Formats: sequence, structure tokens, C-alpha cells
Amino acid sequence: MKLMQTLQISRPIIQAGMVWVSGGKLAAAAANAGCLGVIGAGSMKPELLREHILKAQSLTSKSLAVNVPLLYEKSEEQVQTALDLGLKIFITSAGSPKKFTSMLKSAGCTVLHVVSTPELALKCEDAGVDAVIAEGFEAGGHNGRDELTTMALIPQVVDAVKIPVVAAGGIGDGRAIAAALSLGAECVQMGTRFIATHEASAHDNFKQVLVQAQATDTMLMMKRSVPVRLFKNKFYEQIKAAEESCADKTQLEAILGRGRAKLGMLEGNMDEGEIEIGQIAGLVRDIVSVKELVDRLMVEYHQTIKELPKF
Amino acid sequence: MKLMQTLQISRPIIQAGMVWVSGGKLAAAAANAGCLGVIGAGSMKPELLREHILKAQSLTSKSLAVNVPLLYEKSEEQVQTALDLGLKIFITSAGSPKKFTSMLKSAGCTVLHVVSTPELALKCEDAGVDAVIAEGFEAGGHNGRDELTTMALIPQVVDAVKIPVVAAGGIGDGRAIAAALSLGAECVQMGTRFIATHEASAHDNFKQVLVQAQATDTMLMMKRSVPVRLFKNKFYEQIKAAEESCADKTQLEAILGRGRAKLGMLEGNMDEGEIEIGQIAGLVRDIVSVKELVDRLMVEYHQTIKELPKF
Repeated sequence: MKLMQTLQISRPIIQAGMVWVSGGKLAAAAANAGCLGVIGAGSMKPELLREHILKAQSLTSKSLAVNVPLLYEKSEEQVQTALDLGLKIFITSAGSPKKFTSMLKSAGCTVLHVVSTPELALKCEDAGVDAVIAEGFEAGGHNGRDELTTMALIPQVVDAVKIPVVAAGGIGDGRAIAAALSLGAECVQMGTRFIATHEASAHDNFKQVLVQAQATDTMLMMKRSVPVRLFKNKFYEQIKAAEESCADKTQLEAILGRGRAKLGMLEGNMDEGEIEIGQIAGLVRDIVSVKELVDRLMVEYHQTIKELPKF
Repeated sequence: MKLMQTLQISRPIIQAGMVWVSGGKLAAAAANAGCLGVIGAGSMKPELLREHILKAQSLTSKSLAVNVPLLYEKSEEQVQTALDLGLKIFITSAGSPKKFTSMLKSAGCTVLHVVSTPELALKCEDAGVDAVIAEGFEAGGHNGRDELTTMALIPQVVDAVKIPVVAAGGIGDGRAIAAALSLGAECVQMGTRFIATHEASAHDNFKQVLVQAQATDTMLMMKRSVPVRLFKNKFYEQIKAAEESCADKTQLEAILGRGRAKLGMLEGNMDEGEIEIGQIAGLVRDIVSVKELVDRLMVEYHQTIKELPKF
């Protein structure tokens, strides 16, 4: 597993960057548990990102990364902030892999880019990216337009490129890690499952909603704007009603307004806030420490592969 | 693998029933290759179904089944026809598992029902169904409304019920069989991959289009009527344009008209016909015999599980 060596991790798991959920505390806990700990820069101004990186570095000496969605105007400052503080692993998403890859590679960094199609994976390889994170339709939060699922996407990306592939979307337990590795991924990225940990900065109301959620409690919405998988709350019902009456991008963005994600996921308003979770919601049944979660995932993984039948 | 014993198969593979594709010839070939061979009754009048069952029975002495979508008015006659000819394995879909299960169980048959949520799987178990086929969003053809993908759906169905689970949707090669079994399925159902076999009754034009298709060449459409995953051809573009202008169910069904599926998949009109394939389209690269395909799937499966790493 070449990618695990590159990332200097002992578990084949990347803890996903998630707005308002994955600050320095979660990233450090994931790193200490042998995973790649990722600070989600998406919602952070550069000074806040700086605080979270310093906090994470004070809590661990292990591998840390930052996830920078390229659609935010501050992405260049975010990248510079992380570079200045010595981070060596960057995950970029929601934009062109050409934007920062050459510069980061020249600075001796490792670059992973999030993709939702084999075509984009090929562009990443051409741009010099070290590995792609192929994320399926079932993932929480922002999502691709082609709606490829993890089961269909991973083997097609693996066949398209020579660089390592990380599977993301729909991975909630050790069974799914075995499934993703069967499909040809070297590692997995898990988001939703890490929300229900003590170290995640998600509001307690959010963690409780996740623990009680069912498989059918999410839907991919906002396809006429930026597609995002949402938990079905009152805010979701407003978006759904607008979409059913054929609202356009401007109308949808007016309903979305500003600060909905923070209101929901950090401040705990479960009715009016935007709550981003994936389809594995129904598998999440307890709030545990990151270490306990990761230990359990590895036990489940090894149990799963041991029991695979021969015919 | 209890379900394989019940179905009397040596490979953990069910060849999916597919309108205009899975007649007696394909079902018999699948059965002779050790899989469950399934005649898709969906598009068949009872007399045509009778011909296909008799043909399959003349070509194999192995396990055969019929897939009966319950939304068609002829479903009761189809079930009776199959019973009269001695079939013992029934797959029902697109309707209530209560409709035929008691009667079929009293007649000594095995019943599998297709589900797209854990909730429906529980209803199947309560209705006395022997196993559920849990089919994800990535599957070709008709699809559930909750959009759960195979990766997210299978473990949540496995946890919800005690009866065996078959995984369907997004399974194109032996890697995906290993993935599905990792998720807790006992068998897989494969549709799209079997279209590109000599024995499938799909038109040659259709088989050629499949062999050249890419991962991103399908989309789930007709959500305001009966959701169906389509290949992106001229007919799809018409549906897409109508949906973008917010067409309702009546308008969509007017564009669909009658006989589109036959026109495309059996008669080979790749522009005006309805072409149903799944997201694994980009993995299908050759047209082979069913025996060659199944042998290859099992080699890929065993290779995959042998290479799964320990950490």
C-alpha cells in the first residue's frame, strides 16, 4: 500500500474534511489513531485555519492534512497559511487540479484531489496529483453532477489511472472498507461516521440527529445550483418545495441564504440549518471517541475479509 | 451460503431479469454456467413467456427463475404460467411482496423480492419472502425513489433483516462481487454485464453501444413518473429537455409513448429507443459467451479476495 507510506499512516483511512465538523481537535485525534487527520478549511477564514492547524499540531506529531475547496475565494490564502505552518499534505476539491498542484509539488508536498468521474481522475493524473479521492453520489455534502456511485465509480477510476485511488462515499463501517479495497482503492475517506465522535466539532444536536437517522433520511438537492446531499429537515423541505415548482438557481440560492451550514452543523439549529450527511446515516448508532471508532473499524475489516467465501 | 443451496446454484450470481434482453436462451446459459438463470417476464405476454420457459427448459436441467414486475396487469397470468410449467423460483418486484408470496410459498416455491430500502426489506421478511434483492441507484432500468446506492443500501438491509440479501446495482466484475459479499450480501444480481453476451436477446446495436459506453453515459430520469436509468441518446435528450422545463407526469409519459424499450433494446434503434443500462457501462468492453463471462468473474473474485491486505 504505497499511498499509506506516502501519507505516513498505519490505517487505510482518511478522515474527511467537513465544514464546521473537522477542526484541529478531530484531525489530531484521527492522526493519533493512525489515520490521515484532515482539517476542513472550507468554512474557515485564514486566521481561523491557522488556529486550527496550530491546535492540531499541539495535539499530535503525526500526519496532518488540510482540505481546501477551490470554489472559495480565500483558497489561495488558505493554502499559503497551511504551507507556512509546515503542512505537507493537501487535499483539493471543487475546482481544477491544475490550480495549485505544480506549486505544491515544487514545495515538496503531497497532493490529493477529489473527483467524481474517471475523466476528472485522468486530468488529475496529467496535472501531477499524487492520488485521487473518488467520491460517490451517496456521500454527504457537496457532490458531483454525474451521480456516479462509489460501487460504480471506484473500479472505473482505478482502471483509468495509474496513481492510487481513495474511495469515498457510503463508507460507514469495516465491511465497506473491505468493499472499497476489493474495488481497487488503496484507502478510504470517511466523513459522516466521524461526525458522531467526541472530537468532532459538530453541535451535539447534530450528533444526536445523526445517531437517530435512517438510510432514507437524506437526498441530493440543489442540482440547479451546487449539488449537496442534505438531511431531510424543515430547511430541506423548503428546498424540495422550491425544486418541485421548478425554481431556478437564483431562487434556490435565495432560499439557501447565508450561514445555513454554520447555523445547523455548528450552532445546532436542526430545523432551519443545513445539515450535511451521507446515506450511511442509518449505520451510525453511537457517539464514541475517534480511537474507539478506528479500532472498531479495523476489527470489522479483518473479520469481514476473513469470512469472505471461496467457491 | 445458505441461499446458494436454496437456489441450487454453484456461483453466487443471479442473472437479472431484463425486458427484451433476458429470454430463455440467456437464462439457460446462465443456469448452465452455475448461476441462477432468470427469464424477465416484464415485457412478455403469457404465451410468449410460456415459449421462453419451454425454450430454457429444453436447454438446461438447472435452476431457472422468472422475474415478474408486479406493476404490469398481466402479472397474475405470468405467475400462473410459470407455475404451470414447473418453475420453483420467483423474483417479484415493483409492487407489494404480499401479493403472491403466500400463494407461492404454499405451492412449494422460493420467493425473492426486489427492494430499494431497509424498510421494504423488513416488509418482505414479514410477508414470508425467502430473500431480498437489494438494488442500488446505480442499476440500469427501473429504480427506487429513495436513491440509496448499493454501497449504502446493502449493509443497512443486512442489518435490518434476518433473511439472506442479494446485492444488485453497480456490479460489473469480480471486484464488485467481492465488494458486495464484503458488505454482507450472500449473492449478487448482475444485469448490465449480461447484456454484452452472445446469448442475450438484446439487439447487436445495443450490445455495441454498451461496449463503447462510458461511466457517465447514463442518468436516472422520469422521477416524476416511474424512475428509470437511461443511456444518454437522442430519446434521453428529449426527456431531459422536458424535465428541465418542469414537465409533469402526463407530459413525460406522452414523450415516452409506447414501445420505446422494444424499439431500442430489441429492434436496435439507438436514437429513438429507450436504452436501459447501469453505471458500470464503462467496465463492459467485450461481448463474450455467458460461460466465458462467468468463469472470468469467478477468477476475478478469487484474485481480489486473495490480494486484500491485512494491516
